[in-house]
Amino acid sequence: MFKFPTFLVAAFAICFGLVAFLKRVPDPPSIDELKWWGNEPKGLRDDEQIRPFHIEFNDTMINDLKQRLKNRRPLTKPLDGIMSEYGINTVYLEKIINYWINNYDFKARASRLNKFAHYKTRIQGLDIHFIRAKPEIKAKKTLPLLMLHGWPSSSKEFDKVIPMLINQRSGYDFVFDVIVADLPGFGYSEGSNKPGLTPIQIGVIMRNLMRRVGYNKFYIHGGDWGSQIATHMATLFPSDILGLHTNMPLSSRPISVVKALVGSLFPSLSVDPKYVNRIYPLKNLLSYILRESGYFHIQATKPDTIGVALTDSPTGLAAYIMEKMAICSNRDQTNTLHGGLENLEIDDVLDTITIIWVNNCIVTSSRIYAEGIGQEVHLVHNIPTEVPTAAINFRYEVLYQPDWILRDKFLNLVRSTTLDVGGHFAALQTPNELIDDIYASFAQILEFNGSKNLV
Amino acid sequence: MFKFPTFLVAAFAICFGLVAFLKRVPDPPSIDELKWWGNEPKGLRDDEQIRPFHIEFNDTMINDLKQRLKNRRPLTKPLDGIMSEYGINTVYLEKIINYWINNYDFKARASRLNKFAHYKTRIQGLDIHFIRAKPEIKAKKTLPLLMLHGWPSSSKEFDKVIPMLINQRSGYDFVFDVIVADLPGFGYSEGSNKPGLTPIQIGVIMRNLMRRVGYNKFYIHGGDWGSQIATHMATLFPSDILGLHTNMPLSSRPISVVKALVGSLFPSLSVDPKYVNRIYPLKNLLSYILRESGYFHIQATKPDTIGVALTDSPTGLAAYIMEKMAICSNRDQTNTLHGGLENLEIDDVLDTITIIWVNNCIVTSSRIYAEGIGQEVHLVHNIPTEVPTAAINFRYEVLYQPDWILRDKFLNLVRSTTLDVGGHFAALQTPNELIDDIYASFAQILEFNGSKNLV
Repeated sequence: MFKFPTFLVAAFAICFGLVAFLKRVPDPPSIDELKWWGNEPKGLRDDEQIRPFHIEFNDTMINDLKQRLKNRRPLTKPLDGIMSEYGINTVYLEKIINYWINNYDFKARASRLNKFAHYKTRIQGLDIHFIRAKPEIKAKKTLPLLMLHGWPSSSKEFDKVIPMLINQRSGYDFVFDVIVADLPGFGYSEGSNKPGLTPIQIGVIMRNLMRRVGYNKFYIHGGDWGSQIATHMATLFPSDILGLHTNMPLSSRPISVVKALVGSLFPSLSVDPKYVNRIYPLKNLLSYILRESGYFHIQATKPDTIGVALTDSPTGLAAYIMEKMAICSNRDQTNTLHGGLENLEIDDVLDTITIIWVNNCIVTSSRIYAEGIGQEVHLVHNIPTEVPTAAINFRYEVLYQPDWILRDKFLNLVRSTTLDVGGHFAALQTPNELIDDIYASFAQILEFNGSKNLV
Repeated sequence: MFKFPTFLVAAFAICFGLVAFLKRVPDPPSIDELKWWGNEPKGLRDDEQIRPFHIEFNDTMINDLKQRLKNRRPLTKPLDGIMSEYGINTVYLEKIINYWINNYDFKARASRLNKFAHYKTRIQGLDIHFIRAKPEIKAKKTLPLLMLHGWPSSSKEFDKVIPMLINQRSGYDFVFDVIVADLPGFGYSEGSNKPGLTPIQIGVIMRNLMRRVGYNKFYIHGGDWGSQIATHMATLFPSDILGLHTNMPLSSRPISVVKALVGSLFPSLSVDPKYVNRIYPLKNLLSYILRESGYFHIQATKPDTIGVALTDSPTGLAAYIMEKMAICSNRDQTNTLHGGLENLEIDDVLDTITIIWVNNCIVTSSRIYAEGIGQEVHLVHNIPTEVPTAAINFRYEVLYQPDWILRDKFLNLVRSTTLDVGGHFAALQTPNELIDDIYASFAQILEFNGSKNLV
C-alpha cells in the first residue's frame, strides 16, 4: 500500500513542477525592425512619402470579371437532400453569382469605400495601403487606433464601424484617430516575394506604419490574424502598445492547452455554465474544428497550389470565400442553403471577394497560414503580455476560452465580454455591439493606464 | 513495495486483455446488393445491355479548353528561392500549361486509349464505363482480373500495363481477362446524386459489374482507393474474390495502429532495417502526412466547395492534380521545380487531367473522401479477410506497413515485396515492376488456392 501523505506530497510536487514547467516564459526572438521585404533592392523604393490613393473598380476589370463569371463551367449539383454539409451549395452559389453579375453595383460600392481617405506608403520595401479616418469632433482625448483585419478580409471589413469611432459618443470623453491597414499581401497592400513574412514580421511593419503616420504609441483592435498580429505586437513592443482590444482573444500557451484539457473533466467549474457548450465537450469542438479547418490545412501547407484555381476562377474564389464567411458567422446553419451566409449582407461579402479578385491577392494572402505556424510564432505565443487587454467573445467565434485561460497570455485582462450574438466577422455582422464594446473597453484601458500613470 | 510476480501477472493479464480487445472482430454490416444509385427512378434505367463506347476528345471541347487555358489570369510567382515547398511552382506550371495548349496531342492520346475495347453498362442505376481486354493468346488458365484505380485516376492509369497482362509471359501458364472499370463519379462512369456512395458501396457496384460481364468469381488488383475498395470486397465477399493484389496494402485495424506505435519503441526489431525509414521515426511520417494531406482534409469535409474552382479553371485543376501526382511519385523532390512530377510521363499526367476536365468529374470523384471516412467504413476495415493477398510496396508509396502488421488484416498474405523504386502511381511510373509482381503474385495465389482445392 502507498502511504497516503507521502503520495499526496509527491503528487503535489509533480503537479507543481509540471505547472512551473508549462509556465516557463521563453526569451523573445531578436527582431530586425527594418528587414527588407521589397521585391526591388533596397534604395529603389525606400522613400517615406504618404501618397493619396483611390479605390477603383474599372470597366475593363468589371467586364472581364463578368465575362468569366458568365462563361463559368456547369457546376456540379448538390447531392439529394444536402444543403451545405458537403461545402457550398451550388444552387445557392449560382444565385449569388448571378447577383454579382447583374445586381452588385461595382461603382457604388467603390464610391462607398472612397468616402474614406486612402493612402499608400512604402514600409520596409512594401507598398502598404491604409485608411486614415481623423476624428470629426474635438474631444478631451484622441486615441490613435490601429485596426487589423484577418483572412480573407482587408480594410474593407471596418467600413461600417469607422464612422462610429470618429464621432461623439455619449458617455465618453474620447474619440479615435483611426488607421486601418491592409496587411501586406492583402487587399491593396503589396505582398512580399520573400518567404518568412510571419504575423510577427507583419506586426513590425504595422508598427513602422504607425510611426510613419506620427504615432510611436498607440492602441490596437484586431480580429482573426489581425488579432494574432496585434497580440504579437503587444507581446514584443509592450511600451508602444497602450492597449489592445480583440474579438478573437486567444492564449496558445501550452499551460492554456493543459488547462482546457483539465477543465474538460469539470466543465461547469471551469467555464460559466451559460458558455460551457462553446468549449465542452471537447469532442464536439474538435469535430467542428476538424470539419472546418480543411482550408487552413491546405493554405498552411500548399498555398501556391490551391491559389492557382482561386486566382483563375472568380466563381471558385467566391465559393471558397463564401463558405468560410458563412460558417464563421453561424456554424449551426450547415443545414441551410446559404450555410450561414445570410447573417451577413451579401454586398459586404462581394466587396471582400471583389477586392481579392481585383488585386489578385488570394495567393499572397493565403500564404499567411504557411508563415503563421512556424517555431518563432509558437515561441512568441508563449510569452505573456502586460499590455492592458479587453476581449469580446461573440457567439460564433471560432474558439472560446474562459478568462482564467486567457489570463495566461493577457496578464492585464481589464475587461471580458461574452455575447449571445454575432460571429467571426464582427465588424460586418454586429458592428454596433462591437463598437459599444470598443468604447467601453478603451474607457477601462484608459483608467487602467491612468492608475499606472502610463498616459 | 509491489510484489514482483504479482505485478508481472497483472501486467500480462492487462496486455493480453488489451490485445484481445483490440483484435475483436465486428460483425459485417448488412449490404443491399441492389441499392439504387441512379439519378432517375428505378425502372427507367435498369436495362442490362453492355454498350460499346468510344473515347472522344472533340474539337469543341479542345478549343474551349485551350481558350480557357490561354485566357488564364496572371499566376502568382513563387517566393524567392522556393521550388515546390509551398505547393506547385507556378513557373513550372506555366511550362506545362503551354505544353498542354501547344504540344499535347489530344487526338493521338484519345486514339491510344481507343485501342482498347470500351463499354458502358448500367449497374444499380449508374452508367459504368469499363475496358475489357480479353487474352490475345490461349493459355492453360485464364484469370478474370478486375483492376481498380484511385483518385484522381481512371481506367487510363492502366493503359501501359493492360497489354502485358493479356499476352504470353514466359514462365507462366496463365493469362488474364482484364476488366478495368472507372469508379462511379470518376472518368467516364456516372456519379451518383445520392449521398452515401462509400468505397464499400462502390465495391458492391464493382462486383455487380463483374457478374454482368459473366464472372461470379474473380481476382482483383487495386491501388489507392481502388485498393481500399478491393480490400472491402475481399472482406465482405470472400467466396467471390479468388485473390487480391494491391500496391497500397494497408491494415487500418486498431491493433495495427497500436502495433505501429509500439514498434516505434523498437524500430529495428519491428521492421526490416532496410525499410525502417519508411515508417520510423513516426515524427517524420506524421510531419510528412500533415504536410501532404491538406487536399484529403478539404475533400473529406468540403468537396463541393473546393470542387467549384477546380471545375471552372483548367489551370487550377492541372495545378491541383499535378502537385499530388508529383509528391506521390517522389516525396523527396519538393526542392525541385517539378516537385517530383518528372518521375512520370507528362502525357500520362495530362491524359488524367484531360479526362477529369472532359467529364467535369472533379467534384463527384473528390466526394469519395467525404464518403470514405464514415463509421461503416471503419467497421469493415476492422474485419480481417482470408482471401489470399499479395502486396507490393513501392519506394514512395504514401504509407508503409511491415508484414506483421499487414497480417492483422490479410490473414493469408501469400507474398509481400518491397522495392527501392517507384511510387503511388505504379502502373504509370514503374509498369514493368508492377506487372512482374502481378504475375509472380497470382502464381502464388493460384498455388495457395490449389492447395485449398479452391480453384
